[in-house]
Amino acid sequence: MGLVVQKYGGSSVADAEGIKRVAKRIVEAKKNGNQVVVVVSAMGDTTDELIDLAEQVSPIPAGRELDMLLTAGERISMALLAMAIKNLGHEAQSFTGSQAGVITDSVHNKARIIDVTPGRIRTALDEGNICIVAGFQGVSQDKKDITTLGRGGSDTTAVALAAALDAEVCEIYTDVDGVFTADPRVVKKARKIDWISFEDMLELASSGSKVLLHRCVEYARRYNIPIHVRSSFSGLQGTWVSSEPVAQKTQQQGETKVEQAIISGVAHDTSEAKITVVGVPDKPGEAASIFRAIADAEINIDMVVQNVSAASTGLTDISFTLPKSEGRKAIDALEKAKTAIGFDSLRYDDQIGKISLVGAGMKTNPGVTADFFTALSDAGVNIELISTSEIRISVVTRKDDVPEAVRAVHTAFGLDSESDEAVVYGGTGR
Amino acid sequence: MGLVVQKYGGSSVADAEGIKRVAKRIVEAKKNGNQVVVVVSAMGDTTDELIDLAEQVSPIPAGRELDMLLTAGERISMALLAMAIKNLGHEAQSFTGSQAGVITDSVHNKARIIDVTPGRIRTALDEGNICIVAGFQGVSQDKKDITTLGRGGSDTTAVALAAALDAEVCEIYTDVDGVFTADPRVVKKARKIDWISFEDMLELASSGSKVLLHRCVEYARRYNIPIHVRSSFSGLQGTWVSSEPVAQKTQQQGETKVEQAIISGVAHDTSEAKITVVGVPDKPGEAASIFRAIADAEINIDMVVQNVSAASTGLTDISFTLPKSEGRKAIDALEKAKTAIGFDSLRYDDQIGKISLVGAGMKTNPGVTADFFTALSDAGVNIELISTSEIRISVVTRKDDVPEAVRAVHTAFGLDSESDEAVVYGGTGR
Repeated sequence: MGLVVQKYGGSSVADAEGIKRVAKRIVEAKKNGNQVVVVVSAMGDTTDELIDLAEQVSPIPAGRELDMLLTAGERISMALLAMAIKNLGHEAQSFTGSQAGVITDSVHNKARIIDVTPGRIRTALDEGNICIVAGFQGVSQDKKDITTLGRGGSDTTAVALAAALDAEVCEIYTDVDGVFTADPRVVKKARKIDWISFEDMLELASSGSKVLLHRCVEYARRYNIPIHVRSSFSGLQGTWVSSEPVAQKTQQQGETKVEQAIISGVAHDTSEAKITVVGVPDKPGEAASIFRAIADAEINIDMVVQNVSAASTGLTDISFTLPKSEGRKAIDALEKAKTAIGFDSLRYDDQIGKISLVGAGMKTNPGVTADFFTALSDAGVNIELISTSEIRISVVTRKDDVPEAVRAVHTAFGLDSESDEAVVYGGTGR
Repeated sequence: MGLVVQKYGGSSVADAEGIKRVAKRIVEAKKNGNQVVVVVSAMGDTTDELIDLAEQVSPIPAGRELDMLLTAGERISMALLAMAIKNLGHEAQSFTGSQAGVITDSVHNKARIIDVTPGRIRTALDEGNICIVAGFQGVSQDKKDITTLGRGGSDTTAVALAAALDAEVCEIYTDVDGVFTADPRVVKKARKIDWISFEDMLELASSGSKVLLHRCVEYARRYNIPIHVRSSFSGLQGTWVSSEPVAQKTQQQGETKVEQAIISGVAHDTSEAKITVVGVPDKPGEAASIFRAIADAEINIDMVVQNVSAASTGLTDISFTLPKSEGRKAIDALEKAKTAIGFDSLRYDDQIGKISLVGAGMKTNPGVTADFFTALSDAGVNIELISTSEIRISVVTRKDDVPEAVRAVHTAFGLDSESDEAVVYGGTGR
């Protein structure tokens, strides 16, 4: 008998009807002979509504109390889901993160999982129960306080539980059919990816793809837990994320081998801004002091580029990108260090976008970079910054150019599907 | 430094404004030099809304899961309240029933408190925190499952914590000014009671007064914890419930002795029905077999009366009252035992009401009973059943006669206030 971990996002359990629909799907998995553990997010917009309430009573809600508040959301959805399953004649029990043994550090609102000790889950499974576990939450190791894992935390809960329980697969149910070769809202001809490696998925996630979060995929890679991203509405095969191009099993078809594509997909991100530090003396240690100031303010930066210095002045410009939300903090930190660093001025630009091409195949296909730039050039898109990894090329362009650039690249690399697909696309909850 | 336990009902924390108002009141108590523990109910109608959701996914929600669901309500209110207090510059931490050490039996939806081990509360208090504790909930001793205490459970949580922490007083904040000599919605001239003994309060609670629940008062009496019922809106002195007529302290006036009145108040209850078992053979054991059938169905009955048997037939009638909600079950149980018991028929009547006069003074004032019946008779109210304890007389009348009967008795015993008071009266939450 296999053990399956399923995770359902907030949009899948947004109301009583959604909960009953999900309950039926869970019971199907149980009937297929599996032990089933389900991780569930809060219903629909519950989390946002609770945050709104918190802000009404306190402009800066205390972290410990905000976690106590937000964890009420999964408590509601998990209890309702357990009831709905029991109503279908199957045994089910719900467990909080703490009861499920999700042990975290004490960093409220973005705690990290330290350990998972699912003793109560094991026992309940062995007694024939379907176990419903609250996503997104845990209990701190030292203080025994309730913690939350931050955005996307429910996916991480699911993968962590799958690892601790040695599950066969972690199924992430969402409101899209899987991971796509590009955002279907931008590229109508985007195709669902059947299989993608952990590495490519990690690059897509850190390049703007929102279906799976980086740390969830990272966790799955570390423990080698196959993830199956699929729709809670359609019941179709979705996207497998795993170390090897595993054979997909479908109930109708038996097994099909999946080849690894050269290019997995095109991601884009318009949530970043660019800061340019103008007139930096071109001597050793200057860049270090700039990024020390940024790091001290606990700001994560993404891409960095330093221009060739003008021979006449001995001065250069350094540009970097960072989340828009950190823009104000970064400017303040640099202004404070202006005299010590010795630059002329700062330029802030939030009208940028990033386009990334991801695929392990580019390691052995040297033409990829050239084709990428040609496609952008043919589309009339100007490139402002470039950054590459072994399996990714990213460029920064004007924000307004992003949709056209993504479509051009998608077409150039033969990723377009033959038919326009009707795709439902939205948020995936926590 | 004294330790005060305060309890706020759902109507006091119905929205963000209410929570902020309550936070100010709590901070006042802290500023007055007290250690403060606050027990809070779920916001406004949260509990009812959650029950409604549960019924949408399952007609008979599982007890364990219903408790998991409902306890989300206090989690929300307590976290918000702690945030609001911190926003006023005071340290506060919220605790679930489990974290606060409220240990119960495993009877879901109406668990009983077995023990309270408030170690974490003690520590947090000693560190200078105001502690906010979820009312209505606990954790089962054997299975470590989340439990709820049933209606009025938050008051019981407050009294139990007050006992375990050896508090000076348990303040129950509600949306009325205290305990009244009668329901102010029925008797405009009802007066707020300044002090009432545990015994009289117990009788009022079991006779239909809804301000405090019987088991909360019972708990307070057992551990001799004075309860102060007062309005969270007005800030006025409310009603003290304690063993001795303690001197009331008011900030302006110093101390005032309170005399025990002969009569504490008039309670009424229209939530009961009457079942009459007609044509019961008048021989030993008949009544026992009737009430054994009722007890086996786990139905609590209230008043019982057996008519004098008619000499001609040797048959008698037995009537008893019980909650309307149990009526169907009782009828079924009796019908099933009809042959064994040997009665003619059953009559069910839910158009009845009960009026009770409560006061320890009636022990030493033999005229009370006569005055009570005279008042009812003068008001033209017909009496159907009578039951008495040492400090209470109750009668059953037609439901429609109840308001007039209550007013007549209230006036006859000199309980009317001199002026019409403006009284806010409503539900008190859990």
